[in-house]
Amino acid sequence: MSELTVENITDVVLQQMSTTPNARQKEVLGVFVKHLHAAAKEVRLTPSEWLMGIDFLTKVGQKCTDTRQEFILLSDTMGLSALVHLMHDKTAVEHATTTSLLGPFFRENTPRYKAGEQIAKSVKGKEVVLYGRVSDAHGKPLANAEVTVWQTAENGLYDIQYQDDPDVRGIFTTDANGDYLIRTTAPVGYSIPMDGPVGDLVTSQGRHGMRPAHIHFLISSPDYRELVTALYIDGDAHIADDVVFGVAGELVVKIVDHDPACPIQGASSVRYDFSLSKASEADKMSGRVGADPAAITKAAAAAE
Amino acid sequence: MSELTVENITDVVLQQMSTTPNARQKEVLGVFVKHLHAAAKEVRLTPSEWLMGIDFLTKVGQKCTDTRQEFILLSDTMGLSALVHLMHDKTAVEHATTTSLLGPFFRENTPRYKAGEQIAKSVKGKEVVLYGRVSDAHGKPLANAEVTVWQTAENGLYDIQYQDDPDVRGIFTTDANGDYLIRTTAPVGYSIPMDGPVGDLVTSQGRHGMRPAHIHFLISSPDYRELVTALYIDGDAHIADDVVFGVAGELVVKIVDHDPACPIQGASSVRYDFSLSKASEADKMSGRVGADPAAITKAAAAAE
Repeated sequence: MSELTVENITDVVLQQMSTTPNARQKEVLGVFVKHLHAAAKEVRLTPSEWLMGIDFLTKVGQKCTDTRQEFILLSDTMGLSALVHLMHDKTAVEHATTTSLLGPFFRENTPRYKAGEQIAKSVKGKEVVLYGRVSDAHGKPLANAEVTVWQTAENGLYDIQYQDDPDVRGIFTTDANGDYLIRTTAPVGYSIPMDGPVGDLVTSQGRHGMRPAHIHFLISSPDYRELVTALYIDGDAHIADDVVFGVAGELVVKIVDHDPACPIQGASSVRYDFSLSKASEADKMSGRVGADPAAITKAAAAAE
Repeated sequence: MSELTVENITDVVLQQMSTTPNARQKEVLGVFVKHLHAAAKEVRLTPSEWLMGIDFLTKVGQKCTDTRQEFILLSDTMGLSALVHLMHDKTAVEHATTTSLLGPFFRENTPRYKAGEQIAKSVKGKEVVLYGRVSDAHGKPLANAEVTVWQTAENGLYDIQYQDDPDVRGIFTTDANGDYLIRTTAPVGYSIPMDGPVGDLVTSQGRHGMRPAHIHFLISSPDYRELVTALYIDGDAHIADDVVFGVAGELVVKIVDHDPACPIQGASSVRYDFSLSKASEADKMSGRVGADPAAITKAAAAAE
């Protein structure tokens, strides 16, 4: 029997895992085990530190409920979710609008609205009109695309955090010209949930835990890759240090006070034109195509 | 604002974490984040694979109870626990007996026995005598050292898996010559718990999930580093492919049928001499010294 050493143990583990019949599973787990061991070696992880890690991950798992996904929050605050998005964007067959984090506040229970209707049951903040066009990567307008939006109310919370009824979220449809028109209220920057193990970690790191004000979008159209993104409001104090690394410059927008081009006059407005990439074969296989709402989105919402 | 890219995101995350006041925490988390990102990049982790990972870790956390620690099982089956042990051994100030995994079946509720007493309430298998000496790294016998043993019963299970009362586990004390003498039953190889997410993973990898037959030891003496180890029975079918990578050649023993040196005649026996390293200052700070039962041991037992 060959003796286990700090030097050979990774190879011994990979050898034992080499019987994995699914080639992709074997590759992914093998690489994660290799890097897990490399990290432990690099810091000379001690038994008591190892136990602290076990204890932390256990608490993260135990904090998850039907309405809270603490492991997604952990992934978000470690920048892993943003990295997965950045890599996903590179696999699009055409250049389209940059994606951003789905986050844990999407929900299936979202009402449908007609163009121009207000999604906030009570507009205590500034009323804001969102308008623009959804087109393909070559500028061809996409009629009947579904535009789902969700955001914080004026209290800095998503409906799901304080009530069962949906609020400040809605599904719209683009018109024959690919145009959408939404009335809402100004989103408010907020703290991620800080009352769990991830909040404790972020606090222990001296981080503020804040996300800049933003509006989530999920846009889908048959045969196109589903677009999960968000628009971030320029001027927010945390636009440059989002705790979950969701902001991209292309997604930062200004709320304009008097836009003569806005279809609804008398309110502030944001114009943003989105573009969608044609779905690749891989997109179709993973269910990430507009015609069939993304498995990932549904699963994340179900996991909330 | 500098734009996030696949290339710069790791540095941006590390920069945001650079405010961590505890230098060691900053180092450890920084290195783990670096390797987590590197692994995700190396395999080009997709959104649906990421979600599978989130879902798996959530299930591992939710499987943990007062009597089950699924995250330790995950660490064990990925070889991380064994790696931490191997590195820990290298930090001993003196060369001592090799350590092995504590495992999830240690428990605080363990009866004390006099030398030569039988720890199995019912000996259905082969009776086995364990004897030998506990000494320091220079061969000086250690009197009054505590020798705690625990193992499977003849059904291949630990007491904690099928009853509340302790069985086939006990605490002994070395005599004036540093000698210990224990009567038990032959341990049986067994499968790790396969009815949870870690068992599902191991099965999906085509691994057998078996551990070779072994007897756990935890030996402590004031001012010495606590020794957590196990003796593995030669000839077991899984001595070379333990699912949790716990076996070291130095810890493989034969059950001898007629040993004239054995203090108890008429039964099979195993002789093993253990040596303990003097505790370092770091050992004392982490509580891993015989006089004060290891914090890690207690915490792992409490986490069971």
